[in-house]
Amino acid sequence: MSNYDVIVIGGGGAGLTAALYTARGELKTALFEKLTPGGQIASTDEVENYPGFPEGITGMEISAKMEEQAKKYGAVIIPQEVTGMVKNGEGDFTVLCGGERFAAKTVIVASGANARKLSVPGEKEFAARGVSYCATCDGAFFRNKEIAVVGGGDSAIQEALFLTKFASKVTVIHRRDALRASKILQERAFNHEKIVFAWNAVIKEIQGEKVVTGVVLTDTKTGQERTVPLQGVFIFIGHDPVSSFVQDVLQCDDHGYIITTDLVKTSLTGVFACGEVRQNATRQLVSTCGEGCTAALAAQAYIDDLN
Amino acid sequence: MSNYDVIVIGGGGAGLTAALYTARGELKTALFEKLTPGGQIASTDEVENYPGFPEGITGMEISAKMEEQAKKYGAVIIPQEVTGMVKNGEGDFTVLCGGERFAAKTVIVASGANARKLSVPGEKEFAARGVSYCATCDGAFFRNKEIAVVGGGDSAIQEALFLTKFASKVTVIHRRDALRASKILQERAFNHEKIVFAWNAVIKEIQGEKVVTGVVLTDTKTGQERTVPLQGVFIFIGHDPVSSFVQDVLQCDDHGYIITTDLVKTSLTGVFACGEVRQNATRQLVSTCGEGCTAALAAQAYIDDLN
Repeated sequence: MSNYDVIVIGGGGAGLTAALYTARGELKTALFEKLTPGGQIASTDEVENYPGFPEGITGMEISAKMEEQAKKYGAVIIPQEVTGMVKNGEGDFTVLCGGERFAAKTVIVASGANARKLSVPGEKEFAARGVSYCATCDGAFFRNKEIAVVGGGDSAIQEALFLTKFASKVTVIHRRDALRASKILQERAFNHEKIVFAWNAVIKEIQGEKVVTGVVLTDTKTGQERTVPLQGVFIFIGHDPVSSFVQDVLQCDDHGYIITTDLVKTSLTGVFACGEVRQNATRQLVSTCGEGCTAALAAQAYIDDLN
Repeated sequence: MSNYDVIVIGGGGAGLTAALYTARGELKTALFEKLTPGGQIASTDEVENYPGFPEGITGMEISAKMEEQAKKYGAVIIPQEVTGMVKNGEGDFTVLCGGERFAAKTVIVASGANARKLSVPGEKEFAARGVSYCATCDGAFFRNKEIAVVGGGDSAIQEALFLTKFASKVTVIHRRDALRASKILQERAFNHEKIVFAWNAVIKEIQGEKVVTGVVLTDTKTGQERTVPLQGVFIFIGHDPVSSFVQDVLQCDDHGYIITTDLVKTSLTGVFACGEVRQNATRQLVSTCGEGCTAALAAQAYIDDLN
């Protein structure tokens, strides 16, 4: 069994920053990430609001830089999925990856959150063939095509506006008759010539052959159905935290977000949480990185106190 | 009187990030900074742990980039010192700069903290002539010279280690017989051939002619005095928050740090605090920037709710 001072679970901004800090603090650090390091930001096109890059930077680039920086100071990146975690005693944790076991003195959970699915017929079938959860990843594939955006929050409207760069028409499908998005975004969307709204509507089915050809909408007030022909469906209806592997050991809220005190302390002493897996986290790269730093310093203090 | 949506007080990482976010969110934003934007980080030599810069970056450079980025999205930087703040009603604040008045719908306090002084004879007299509060600013002036570092915490020991790059000998002067600094730093300092310790010692006086020539130490146990000849004194004994201008309107702790809930909310609705002026803030650039982002989004939500 490999032994580490710190195991960081998740390789988004929060995890990479935590690993940078603990590794640079001369703690033996392993970071587990089942996909490519970078997390959600890695699949983001242009990042304009991460401080320090006035010209903007792509999600891929900033992710790669953060990974390089964490590695430079000695963090080891392990491309495996964590399936469980056990506390054997103070300063004695076991992290499970299927059958494999890894020991650590402290654990930082930075596993993020995943885009929520509609769970309607056709959604899974046409994933990556017209169905997308990432405008910046896939928007360019829909040049001069008609698409739908599902959702009424900030990210839905923000992404709808972004998608007008490519699509000829964007229909925002929302189950209610008003948006939750901020007024500035609403105004921009209402005034945009390419954006139309389908109010009080839900998708009953996503239709297609090889690729998406349309959606069947149900009117939530009248129950009436209608088919809208289009080539793409972008779904922005929220996120679910990636926390099933710690649900039985850490206190979580009803949505599965890890509950913390003092920003990063979980209900289990010696385990810290940061970034979007944490309840009430700000969903921005710089704020999740900031939390990663705070979690790392808290983990360092926990280890110092063991001695 | 100039009218703004958001007034940010302080131009360190926290303030510049807050201004970047509110300005990019199409809120009319002014940032007040009496010195050069960048705050404490601007006077830091090399920043190795701000995520995104694997090769490191100087404090001056990262500050300039953050300032450029905030300005790019429309933030106005006003080089004046804020002397007070008044709440006239919800969404109606007046920020005072001596006789001048500025109106804002919401205020973000990001005024940071200042290095604490010893307040002994010679300290003020020899400031910038041998007395320093910033190793990275002034270390290079002390090549092959003997210097003292005052303090026993993380930053004191970290800076003592840094100063060995330049000085021929570093005497750490500490009032007690043990350090508060982390064990890793202690070990490095104890094992460093250029570092010696003066335990149970306080500086009674800093002596010199044109520049510092020595310090008079008092033994805190015996009361005995001795003179140590040296050319530089670096003082790292903590920080004081820059919050006097809001002490009468915002709830602060005994040290003057602004007390917040939900990370950035002050006792006065519509006023937010972030970075080192806030109680329990993590003293790292990325974490203060992260808080600036959270404060900006909270300020935006406050303004949205006014309408």
